[in-house]
Amino acid sequence: MDFTVTILGSGAAIPTTERNPSAQLVEVRNNLLLLDCGEGTQMQLRKSGVRIQKINHIFISHLHGDHYFGLIGLINTMHLLGRSQELHLYAIQPLEELIKMQLELSRTTLLYPLIFHPVDPEISSVILDHAQFTVTTIPLNHRVPTCGFLIREKPEKRRIRKDFLKTARVPVAFFDRIKDGEDYTDENGHVHLNQLITHDPPQVKSYAYCTDTAYYQPVVPVIKDCTLLYHEATFMEDKAADARAKFHSTAKEAASIALQAGAKNSDVDGLLREAKEVFPETVLAEDGLKVEV
Amino acid sequence: MDFTVTILGSGAAIPTTERNPSAQLVEVRNNLLLLDCGEGTQMQLRKSGVRIQKINHIFISHLHGDHYFGLIGLINTMHLLGRSQELHLYAIQPLEELIKMQLELSRTTLLYPLIFHPVDPEISSVILDHAQFTVTTIPLNHRVPTCGFLIREKPEKRRIRKDFLKTARVPVAFFDRIKDGEDYTDENGHVHLNQLITHDPPQVKSYAYCTDTAYYQPVVPVIKDCTLLYHEATFMEDKAADARAKFHSTAKEAASIALQAGAKNSDVDGLLREAKEVFPETVLAEDGLKVEV
Repeated sequence: MDFTVTILGSGAAIPTTERNPSAQLVEVRNNLLLLDCGEGTQMQLRKSGVRIQKINHIFISHLHGDHYFGLIGLINTMHLLGRSQELHLYAIQPLEELIKMQLELSRTTLLYPLIFHPVDPEISSVILDHAQFTVTTIPLNHRVPTCGFLIREKPEKRRIRKDFLKTARVPVAFFDRIKDGEDYTDENGHVHLNQLITHDPPQVKSYAYCTDTAYYQPVVPVIKDCTLLYHEATFMEDKAADARAKFHSTAKEAASIALQAGAKNSDVDGLLREAKEVFPETVLAEDGLKVEV
Repeated sequence: MDFTVTILGSGAAIPTTERNPSAQLVEVRNNLLLLDCGEGTQMQLRKSGVRIQKINHIFISHLHGDHYFGLIGLINTMHLLGRSQELHLYAIQPLEELIKMQLELSRTTLLYPLIFHPVDPEISSVILDHAQFTVTTIPLNHRVPTCGFLIREKPEKRRIRKDFLKTARVPVAFFDRIKDGEDYTDENGHVHLNQLITHDPPQVKSYAYCTDTAYYQPVVPVIKDCTLLYHEATFMEDKAADARAKFHSTAKEAASIALQAGAKNSDVDGLLREAKEVFPETVLAEDGLKVEV
């Protein structure tokens, strides 16, 4: 099934005509998640042809403006367009107060339930346990409390081999048990080992979103073996001191995290060449880029 | 001298790919003023090639999101770009608290003085008395406390006729007194009447920005004889009841205000044809439109 990441904004603190502030749209098994929501995100969503009311979960990594100044506008537009279904928002606590204040100032009572889930950015925990995927926080090391998010599919059931279904007359009632891993005993008492009559389900995929952060080794075990890693990289290696002072990473550091975590691919914010030297499966995050996990 | 209005966003509550939320840039005698600041205004300014650090005064009409959600991002960008000179902000009081809260959340101490001027939207008063122009509030009638802004040039001095300067040898020391209206007595004791040796200065121009509001007759005396009027018009006349219920105006109502105020031109937000029937000097406000006052 589809698991894609679309870069709506590739993380410039100061928006330029080419790069918008941070926002990514993740589609996982037909669910739309929004990661961060810089100013102008709702316009970017509209340009990308995304049906914004399909977004039910929004995750904010930290409260630097370039990661959330577009949130209140999106919440407001969802309201003006007549949304009725729940919207879940995951962020550190003070954001809830800020949104309430803005809604009060405009005397707005939202037409839909906005459900705020306070996040503790200091510890890694599952903050969303959905039937088809989980979202886990990734503690990061930035100037203000910050966490990334790991989105991991849940394993699908085993798949019954088509050739077996064609020859054996398996009653439909047994399908789910076989998919769950049981052997199948046919009407003649013959036992078919599950292993022989099913395929493995597709490998579980995962996406790790790590921004903004200094080089931070504790990230590695949390995102171990993720399929795709997005890691910020604000500086080249020759500015490593600046990176540390500003709690950002260099391209090499980002690539090193990808390498240590055993990521399949990584998506580094800028500074592509340097990152590729360390981790060749690196692509450059640009506004509008859509990556298959 | 230049006195222009550029429509950065023409007032859609929900941003579309063609219309941005409200924001207008006014240039008056080489000063840049920003009226309202919807989401994405800083990107619009950048697209228009405006040097944002030249903006020293920002006026917010009311606290509906489409009129101010872009303000905190602009304030932040000015900081990130190293601004040092004062920025003056004119709005109702609660906005100050909101901005402070957002700066605290991101642990930002602005590099420049942000000077907040609380505005009482109930009474018309001069809120900025600049050497070259004044800004006066225009009480409006909307669902939340709202005021418009009237920007009026100050009169220039009289201009000494070039032909007179060529024939009479007027010492430079007398120039200012003649410009202030004094007669000039030459070395032979001959009195030159000021009226004969000077031109009138150019007529004083003014721009009235009225959004958002229901039809509200008390606006008329405040904006009397303005050179250019911008007046919102959200509905056509057949939806007059909706307009009243939502504290917006119809195109005809907007044009009627222009007519009563004796405006030279008016700039009606949308619904052009209907407005033109009442007030022929109406133009349609579209994003990117630049109007000479």
